[in-house]
Amino acid sequence: MTLTGPVLVVGTGLLGTSIGLACRRAGLEVLLSDVSPEHVRTASGLGAGRPVAPGDRPQLVVVAVPPDLLGPVVVEALRGTDAVVTDVGSIKSLPLHEVAAAVTPEQLARYVGSHPMAGSERSGPLAATAALFDARPWAVAPAATAAPEAAALVQALARTCGAVPVVLTPEEHDRAVARTSHLPHLMSVLMAGRLVDAPAEHLALSGQGVRDVTRVAGSDPALWQQIVTGNAEAVLDLLAEVREQLEELMTAVAAGERTALGGLLARGVAGTRAIPGKHGGPTQDTLSVFVSVPDTPGELARLFADAGASGVNIEDVHIDHDPGRPTGLVELVVAESRAETLLACLESRGWVTHR
Amino acid sequence: MTLTGPVLVVGTGLLGTSIGLACRRAGLEVLLSDVSPEHVRTASGLGAGRPVAPGDRPQLVVVAVPPDLLGPVVVEALRGTDAVVTDVGSIKSLPLHEVAAAVTPEQLARYVGSHPMAGSERSGPLAATAALFDARPWAVAPAATAAPEAAALVQALARTCGAVPVVLTPEEHDRAVARTSHLPHLMSVLMAGRLVDAPAEHLALSGQGVRDVTRVAGSDPALWQQIVTGNAEAVLDLLAEVREQLEELMTAVAAGERTALGGLLARGVAGTRAIPGKHGGPTQDTLSVFVSVPDTPGELARLFADAGASGVNIEDVHIDHDPGRPTGLVELVVAESRAETLLACLESRGWVTHR
Repeated sequence: MTLTGPVLVVGTGLLGTSIGLACRRAGLEVLLSDVSPEHVRTASGLGAGRPVAPGDRPQLVVVAVPPDLLGPVVVEALRGTDAVVTDVGSIKSLPLHEVAAAVTPEQLARYVGSHPMAGSERSGPLAATAALFDARPWAVAPAATAAPEAAALVQALARTCGAVPVVLTPEEHDRAVARTSHLPHLMSVLMAGRLVDAPAEHLALSGQGVRDVTRVAGSDPALWQQIVTGNAEAVLDLLAEVREQLEELMTAVAAGERTALGGLLARGVAGTRAIPGKHGGPTQDTLSVFVSVPDTPGELARLFADAGASGVNIEDVHIDHDPGRPTGLVELVVAESRAETLLACLESRGWVTHR
Repeated sequence: MTLTGPVLVVGTGLLGTSIGLACRRAGLEVLLSDVSPEHVRTASGLGAGRPVAPGDRPQLVVVAVPPDLLGPVVVEALRGTDAVVTDVGSIKSLPLHEVAAAVTPEQLARYVGSHPMAGSERSGPLAATAALFDARPWAVAPAATAAPEAAALVQALARTCGAVPVVLTPEEHDRAVARTSHLPHLMSVLMAGRLVDAPAEHLALSGQGVRDVTRVAGSDPALWQQIVTGNAEAVLDLLAEVREQLEELMTAVAAGERTALGGLLARGVAGTRAIPGKHGGPTQDTLSVFVSVPDTPGELARLFADAGASGVNIEDVHIDHDPGRPTGLVELVVAESRAETLLACLESRGWVTHR
């Protein structure tokens, strides 16, 4: 089934407006709807489509409203049109159950939930961009009740938006994001919570590690409340596993049992290697090259120009800001086999480096 | 007390050799010792100092051996010289107790433990560099038994190596690193352990969040075994707090208690804000600007040159690699007030950006 449009976007916040922009980029007609007429005006003004009008016949409806409202809005779309309907919420089983309980089998066959793995710490149509989904995974989660051509159309939407569709059942999806998104978030929250009452001179010893672990805990609590509540079962299963491993860890530490502790630590190492590498390929062995860089505009550009001249591809970058000095350490992550080449090139151009 | 040298470094691995190089950079005489004559030769060949000889009278001894050996080697240094003795291990109370039990009060007064917050995933003298400590915090942890001038000399060492001394008692130090380093490590390990048996199609949905949270779990389990075992008491106190909060979290999720869940999530947000900001100053409000960048050498340099031209200081950088496409999303973190300037500049130079 080819996506030819029109595409009706219900909810013109960050995700909805970005989908509108991405579909317009691909030349599709886009219709916009939102409880806020101002949001529709803004999204339309940005070029994301035109306000929906009576008599419009969308081929595909994309529901992009907050998690709590998903079910009712999907039901309304299935009843009010003969289009394929998808949504872009972070959880898939709960809205599916709500929808299944409210519509006919013919209507249900037209519903295929989905979930683009993209977002921003900002929200609203003004933060939208056609590039939001470029190169991101986009989960497409058809239930057994869904028509195959409806699922194909939602995959076509993901590709039209520049994303890479990943097809799973709704239950699989929810278990997957419980593990790869919701649990990491909650572990980050539990860790960050332990910093609240810490003395300032203790926190002065904070390095990059604690910053990395707690980074996602800074996201919007109201949204995460809805997400975690909506995926309670899968999240609880994993939290129970964590509790069991935490008990094991506490027992090992209290008893000074180094073998048990070592086993837990080794399992952590194995877990970091299980995450797919760049572009979905196998995890690559990388090395970090550290470079001291004056913390002023221009110096980073000079560093990357010199790094570029080495011909070595930079896999990742971190800037490590440290207390008390107007300079930063930049960590360049490169393939293990290329580290020496990069180091030699940077050193020959006067950079202070270390491994 | 001025640091005039000679400085004797015992243990010429990554840290010891780097300290030698940093002291040589400052013009001090450095003496080197290691159970491995080959390590001493390598460190000496790199310019970190000369092998120690009979009759040498060091002003300061720096013990840089693995955690398990710290106590005995510090005792030997206190007995064999009249120098101030420090060590650079990750925990401070346990070696102090070992030393205190074995030496005279006069000898004990010359011992001041310390802990530079720097390292590398590599080890050995070949990975060493004089720049390793530049701009890093360096904890100096004198016990009540330590002579003030000995503590001053160890602070002078930290400054000579380019680091920023942070003075705490040994007990405070161990509680501080339990919270800012050991607990984050263990939480990261517990999370990463949950990824080991996950199906590949679930892991395909991994985003930047889970990568950040699990990053430190990839470090050497043997070293972390020693660190966690050596700081068992402080670590256990914090793990008990985590267990309590985990129970609270599970109860809230199971009961669908949104207020309790919201409280835990909000505490996480507060924790991320408690970490000191850049250069030890207050946390700065930042925004992320995302840029689509072809994943080839040269493009990053062009991006940073264009970003540099905007005059906006880049606070941090992440490269988000996504499956299935030879392109990356680069996240530039900048001060909130500067984001629009950067966006306008990049867009005018043809970059595809979003917020």
